[in-house]
Amino acid sequence: MKIRRSDRLIDMTNFLLDHPRELVALPFFVKRYGSAKSSISEDLVIIKRAFKAQGLGVVRTLPGAAGGVEYLPGISEPLARDFLELMAEKMADSNRLLPGGYLYLSDLLGTPNYLKIIGRLIAAQYSEEKVDAVMTVATKGIPIAQSTANYLGVPFVVARRDPKITEGATVSVNYVSGSSDRVQKMELSKRSLSDGANVVIVDDFMKGGGTIHGMHDLIKEFNAHLVGITVFAETAFSGKRAVQDYTSLLEVTEINTQTDQILVQPGNYLEKLQLITTAENAD
Amino acid sequence: MKIRRSDRLIDMTNFLLDHPRELVALPFFVKRYGSAKSSISEDLVIIKRAFKAQGLGVVRTLPGAAGGVEYLPGISEPLARDFLELMAEKMADSNRLLPGGYLYLSDLLGTPNYLKIIGRLIAAQYSEEKVDAVMTVATKGIPIAQSTANYLGVPFVVARRDPKITEGATVSVNYVSGSSDRVQKMELSKRSLSDGANVVIVDDFMKGGGTIHGMHDLIKEFNAHLVGITVFAETAFSGKRAVQDYTSLLEVTEINTQTDQILVQPGNYLEKLQLITTAENAD
Repeated sequence: MKIRRSDRLIDMTNFLLDHPRELVALPFFVKRYGSAKSSISEDLVIIKRAFKAQGLGVVRTLPGAAGGVEYLPGISEPLARDFLELMAEKMADSNRLLPGGYLYLSDLLGTPNYLKIIGRLIAAQYSEEKVDAVMTVATKGIPIAQSTANYLGVPFVVARRDPKITEGATVSVNYVSGSSDRVQKMELSKRSLSDGANVVIVDDFMKGGGTIHGMHDLIKEFNAHLVGITVFAETAFSGKRAVQDYTSLLEVTEINTQTDQILVQPGNYLEKLQLITTAENAD
Repeated sequence: MKIRRSDRLIDMTNFLLDHPRELVALPFFVKRYGSAKSSISEDLVIIKRAFKAQGLGVVRTLPGAAGGVEYLPGISEPLARDFLELMAEKMADSNRLLPGGYLYLSDLLGTPNYLKIIGRLIAAQYSEEKVDAVMTVATKGIPIAQSTANYLGVPFVVARRDPKITEGATVSVNYVSGSSDRVQKMELSKRSLSDGANVVIVDDFMKGGGTIHGMHDLIKEFNAHLVGITVFAETAFSGKRAVQDYTSLLEVTEINTQTDQILVQPGNYLEKLQLITTAENAD
């Protein structure tokens, strides 16, 4: 049965959104819709244009026998900036202040609409890299890992401080939590990562970077490769961080428990995004 | 600037997918595209048809001044059945068997493509109910809660057995873990749920139902209402379950550590789905 262009466009949009970073050969759509290859190619021109206008990433067609179409989720610089400024404003709400100078963030990191954009932002950074898995440590990093993995089209794995019987054999490392100077242990199921896997590390918060460093050590134990590190928020830290090369979406520059003041600004994400965009334009 | 129909269809598809269960007034699209209301109405007829053909839920238009269009994520019965049979087959792989008769499932529950369908399946059950939040308990239930919340367009909240300093004041309940008969405690941040909230409970596994019962008790402590309970998998349990009314996507009927045999079949989800569909047809 032949399918009309309008129905094809809607179905293809759905399909591409559901299969990020997956190269789909054109004959797949030719068969799916019973349409000519030339019609599918015209559809893709329209879809490319509409996705570009929305600023939600790039639809790319690769020519040749091994070619096809793929959707690389992303976000335009203005949308990214607006979102990070909104988050900074929400995080600076003094009602979030908890005893000890901690911030309550579970509402933000429990809102799917925010998590979707966080995932897009992080995935956009690695859109030209080979990625096989996203890694985080339980518990707060999980929603960020899930959303990032979703837009990268790969699985996510969760290291734990309190390994469960349902993980089977694990590999463990010790790490120093920078904020407390205490040596802790984190474990990851042996089945989680395959040899040589390319891994993106994400987490909710980074202070001294000790936890992130622990995850990096875990990756090494699995003979896997670190692709990059992105945290939702970094906080001011006096001293040398255990991790130097990372991206932060937000930066908490001050938490004053005397005046109940919290200062938050976009992290180094936007600078890094500009570097990526500039490099692309130079090609 | 006027926008062509094909571009409108792609943008509206994206928009509706990104805003599940949100009633969007037609003037919003009229303004967004600079198009006549009649054109938007025609677009929606096409979108309705295409979404229906894909079996991924219903696009519904409500007439009148307070009307508009909304997307209710769902899944067709054949797609649901195929997915549950695939999951049952994957779960029955004897390589998953861990000492003590536990099953390794982190790979399945760490795969975004599976989680998306799991979320759709669960959300579809509650498409006609008022839902304000999805609740689970850390850690394994989190990805299921996130995906379900995503398709219901609501936040998710996470109860914890080991409360963190970053949760602020909490409400706690004791519960008896059915499998171990041990009294444990779970806590939920006081800020998580508002008075009278309508809550869907989800979790990965249910044996005796004690953990689920604990979450139900927590909901009561918040003066919130239980909308329904869905677990990814239930296992055989000799004795009376602490929870009677629940939905399971899968049922592990036997784990034999002598013969390494695992028997898994679709849970009561498909029966419940038929009940819903039948009731709808009766209207």
